[in-house]
Amino acid sequence: MSKIIISLSGGVDSATALAIAKKEGHECHAVSFVYGSKHGKYENVASSKLSTHYKLESWRKINLETVMKDFDSHLLESGGDIPEGHYEDESMSQTVVPARNIIFSSILAGLAWSIEASEVWLGVHAGDHAIYPDCRPEFIDAMRRAIDLGTDGKVMLTAPLLHLDKKRIVELGKDLKVPFQITRTCYKKQELACGKCGSCRERLEAFSANGLLDPIQYMLSPENAI
Amino acid sequence: MSKIIISLSGGVDSATALAIAKKEGHECHAVSFVYGSKHGKYENVASSKLSTHYKLESWRKINLETVMKDFDSHLLESGGDIPEGHYEDESMSQTVVPARNIIFSSILAGLAWSIEASEVWLGVHAGDHAIYPDCRPEFIDAMRRAIDLGTDGKVMLTAPLLHLDKKRIVELGKDLKVPFQITRTCYKKQELACGKCGSCRERLEAFSANGLLDPIQYMLSPENAI
Repeated sequence: MSKIIISLSGGVDSATALAIAKKEGHECHAVSFVYGSKHGKYENVASSKLSTHYKLESWRKINLETVMKDFDSHLLESGGDIPEGHYEDESMSQTVVPARNIIFSSILAGLAWSIEASEVWLGVHAGDHAIYPDCRPEFIDAMRRAIDLGTDGKVMLTAPLLHLDKKRIVELGKDLKVPFQITRTCYKKQELACGKCGSCRERLEAFSANGLLDPIQYMLSPENAI
Repeated sequence: MSKIIISLSGGVDSATALAIAKKEGHECHAVSFVYGSKHGKYENVASSKLSTHYKLESWRKINLETVMKDFDSHLLESGGDIPEGHYEDESMSQTVVPARNIIFSSILAGLAWSIEASEVWLGVHAGDHAIYPDCRPEFIDAMRRAIDLGTDGKVMLTAPLLHLDKKRIVELGKDLKVPFQITRTCYKKQELACGKCGSCRERLEAFSANGLLDPIQYMLSPENAI
């Protein structure tokens, strides 16, 4: 049993990572970053609900909106429209937020050291590898080493889903009774999930591949359903 | 000639690193982090003056006070008194700010990617190695690799002073006509440098070892002078 800090976005992945941490009996402190993304408001609602559901030791929101105001990404309020299509389409690379996981894991490392938590958990997974360089195993390995050296061995970076794809994460989440109905995945600035962006499509495909109905509501009309 | 982003604290090291960058003909963008340190206000004045002196392409202040509000360090407003004594004294480790350079370099990497700068420069040096784990060569190497992988090769971390001690930096700065009179080194929350904290003592020793007078004013009475 360790004291850990987990990055909680409110999506399926971080919720499942949190469920793993709880099952392993860790003392869980969560941080949700507010960084100017179009879907940030809805992620935040989901993170808050997950925080309550899992009775976390603490849940902090850390605001990076001014820190990242000059960052270039379609995922951000300051950027262009969220592209529609499959996650592996070239257009989805517009949703990369430069160095996001480098920044998130760094801040969590400093906080972990300060509150004497020994691990920082990120919910990155295999489905992210194609587009997001700071979700790939080689990056996670390098960042783990940088955090280990930069904190004098006090903090370890952990990515429990690193080699799992979304299908497997949904399967695992189901087994762990993750409350998928309160998670948020869609990248768009609207309350109901669009069902068309890469993030929605990956989620829908993962539920379908498990023979499950996704419990959240979509604004898809039947003719637009994937 | 590259487009670079340099972390500018307003001290001797970052000023000298900046002088090197200018001499090498780089397009220099600087960022000064405001993170709740006791001497932050005075660092900021120095950074502003250096920005003007070196006619930088841009100078940004990035505020991390709320991000780092729960961080544990005597260097911060929220922490205990700044210790006095030599830099290598055990007590000076109270001034470590957890993961500071991990966080600074991460944010600069994301900004560099966004504004198409290819390098991030930090002024860390050999005098920092004993106390500050995120100033050591093995950390810098690991962080360089993490940033390289996490930005898909777009951004390189550079630490031009990494293997120089303070004496050599002052010597180099003198040759490069660094305006030492407008730099800020003291850790304490007071306008005049105290001359007693580890940071002041290292600076004074470096000037003395070069046979130079430090052009800034100290509040030392003669009997307290080192």
